[in-house]
Amino acid sequence: LVSDGERQQTTEPDRPGDLLNLIRTGRARTRGELGQVTGLARSTVAQRIDALIDAGLVVEVGGAPSTGGRPPSLLGFNADAGLILAADLGATHSRIAVCNLLAESLAETTAEIDINSGPDVVLAWLEETFDGLLAEIRRSPGEVRGIGIGVPGPVDYAHGVAVNPPIMAGWHMHPIKDRFASRYGAPVLVDNDVNIMALGEYWVMEPKVDDFVFVKVGTGIGSGLILGGVLHRGANGAAGDIGHVRASSDDVVCRCGNNGCLEALAGGAAIAGRLSDSGLEASGSRDVVRLVERGNDLATRSVRDAGRLIGQVLASTVNLLNPSMIMIGGDLARAEQQLLAGIREVVYQRSTTLSTTDLSIIVSSLGDRSGVIGAAAMAIDHIMTPRAVDEALAGAG
Amino acid sequence: LVSDGERQQTTEPDRPGDLLNLIRTGRARTRGELGQVTGLARSTVAQRIDALIDAGLVVEVGGAPSTGGRPPSLLGFNADAGLILAADLGATHSRIAVCNLLAESLAETTAEIDINSGPDVVLAWLEETFDGLLAEIRRSPGEVRGIGIGVPGPVDYAHGVAVNPPIMAGWHMHPIKDRFASRYGAPVLVDNDVNIMALGEYWVMEPKVDDFVFVKVGTGIGSGLILGGVLHRGANGAAGDIGHVRASSDDVVCRCGNNGCLEALAGGAAIAGRLSDSGLEASGSRDVVRLVERGNDLATRSVRDAGRLIGQVLASTVNLLNPSMIMIGGDLARAEQQLLAGIREVVYQRSTTLSTTDLSIIVSSLGDRSGVIGAAAMAIDHIMTPRAVDEALAGAG
Repeated sequence: LVSDGERQQTTEPDRPGDLLNLIRTGRARTRGELGQVTGLARSTVAQRIDALIDAGLVVEVGGAPSTGGRPPSLLGFNADAGLILAADLGATHSRIAVCNLLAESLAETTAEIDINSGPDVVLAWLEETFDGLLAEIRRSPGEVRGIGIGVPGPVDYAHGVAVNPPIMAGWHMHPIKDRFASRYGAPVLVDNDVNIMALGEYWVMEPKVDDFVFVKVGTGIGSGLILGGVLHRGANGAAGDIGHVRASSDDVVCRCGNNGCLEALAGGAAIAGRLSDSGLEASGSRDVVRLVERGNDLATRSVRDAGRLIGQVLASTVNLLNPSMIMIGGDLARAEQQLLAGIREVVYQRSTTLSTTDLSIIVSSLGDRSGVIGAAAMAIDHIMTPRAVDEALAGAG
Repeated sequence: LVSDGERQQTTEPDRPGDLLNLIRTGRARTRGELGQVTGLARSTVAQRIDALIDAGLVVEVGGAPSTGGRPPSLLGFNADAGLILAADLGATHSRIAVCNLLAESLAETTAEIDINSGPDVVLAWLEETFDGLLAEIRRSPGEVRGIGIGVPGPVDYAHGVAVNPPIMAGWHMHPIKDRFASRYGAPVLVDNDVNIMALGEYWVMEPKVDDFVFVKVGTGIGSGLILGGVLHRGANGAAGDIGHVRASSDDVVCRCGNNGCLEALAGGAAIAGRLSDSGLEASGSRDVVRLVERGNDLATRSVRDAGRLIGQVLASTVNLLNPSMIMIGGDLARAEQQLLAGIREVVYQRSTTLSTTDLSIIVSSLGDRSGVIGAAAMAIDHIMTPRAVDEALAGAG
């Protein structure tokens, strides 16, 4: 009953769905490697791989270098075995894509649409857009295996509904899933915009870090937490809400009803408001970035100061979660030099020494595509759970 | 390849170690239930249960009500199949126990020992104490299957060493595991005091909440985070360190070198210091509690104010993690009325509405026994991973 001190707590994979995930993530590339990793008998591996090949999920992609005898065939995940529909719906700006099963975009478009037009208008438009993109690449709605949608407000993930979203008029408790689930006969996953951005960045990250905080600094401020390799949503799907942490004893009133909230002081809307009060032309985050890029002093100082305030809240986050990486995204991240400088200054000063030992603070690698990739990743992770794969195989057999 | 929207992401159990955990946690009590939960064939379940019975880990504990025919036998986890040694080493006060495999104490003792005596003195004493407790219940060191130890400072969990602990002179990087691992031939797990307290409370919690923050308010202040049912340690084992979050713009200098830290303002040592400056007799948390219990006004107000400051930091924690429960432990939690009132006042005012929807804030249920139970639980969780059980069975067979 004894075991060594460093053993992993995870269950070892030994079912067809598990084998598929080993191949999909590149952790095993031949039947022999699958046997080594799982400890399964050669005959068992062969049988399970045959089932995955029959289902079209795994393909033989050529020979691997042999150590003598017939070269073993390389196994590959067939990313074309189905399609994923992905949408990153923003307040005024959306990005929609049709992806393969590796979250690689096959067709993609952006559009200006006001989320406050309400769910009927926006979702009808989204349906048309999905169909248009499918037609563009001559693929059929029947090939859709999963749908991921991000929205700019708090989401009850289990039920796929927005809950009292402050900027999404008419969306409270609207059943977003139903329309798409019945139309495409595939599972629909819905989450807030920041969580899908975190998922998107984690999806492409190489090597992956298990504890990672994604911070979106746009009109508002929010974060998505990847902890132990899994997105942490919390009891009500409200986790990551750093925008309403008290960042100052100032009496600035926030749209949430409290005062001194980080977002009300350091969000893009707040900065633009202050610049506008000083006579500059700024109505949102993008205008702020434009002014910084043109070298405007006041805008530059404002962004730097915002970075310091964000850094103050992130310093507490670092003490609490001890992540390996903080990644900054959102519109204001385009003013990266100033914003990052302010954040780093305060985090490294205010967090404990141990918790910043291996901490890196960087800007988003995907920019405004992180959300749509994350929406696809969310759907793929869902349909690729070992159990879902096994049930699909059983259903097909 | 489709699946319903609510499917769990976990791998289904289907190995002997998995079956043992279903029995151990009461999720299945007969061979029939094991078959239903796992989907395994009747013959496979029977074979695997036989192996667990042969190994002494499972026992048949009598008949279950039958639905016709021979009554199925009830299966029970044999908590006496081995012993666990558990130690909660505090700054000046320690609690040591010998437990069964359900973390139930078979023999237990407390002692005043100064952690600053250094690892040689303290660990030699601990070894003697373990042996004394084993002798007391006439059990042999050969029956020890795991050892869990908590220490009052930051721990690199993977290596089982304290890292620059502020109050543990001589312990930096000392190989705590080695002495016990070789003496008892069993795995040794080491973590900080607050993490094992969180594990202990989670172990006895019924029903369990998946997202849970344990806060220790004693001489210092720290927290242990159970997220998604798993203790979150962070990249360097430093997670949960809320004591050094900036809680005030005051210039109070903290032992960590920064100023305005929560611990320097609201920890038991800080409160005692202020009361002592006002002419009261108070040299630590316990004196503060004594003064509050006697109805001293200044002490009562000081604890209430400390609760408010702690609440301020916890409000940010709630916004960030959206836990279902915050549990307050440590010496100062004995002044629970005043401390909780201050904490609740600020958390419910400062956290977002959604994140406090289902939040409860309560005091520790185990009091000063949470640490030693958690130390045992940490060791049991480690040796009861499905893989560890399977390897033990393979080794025995």
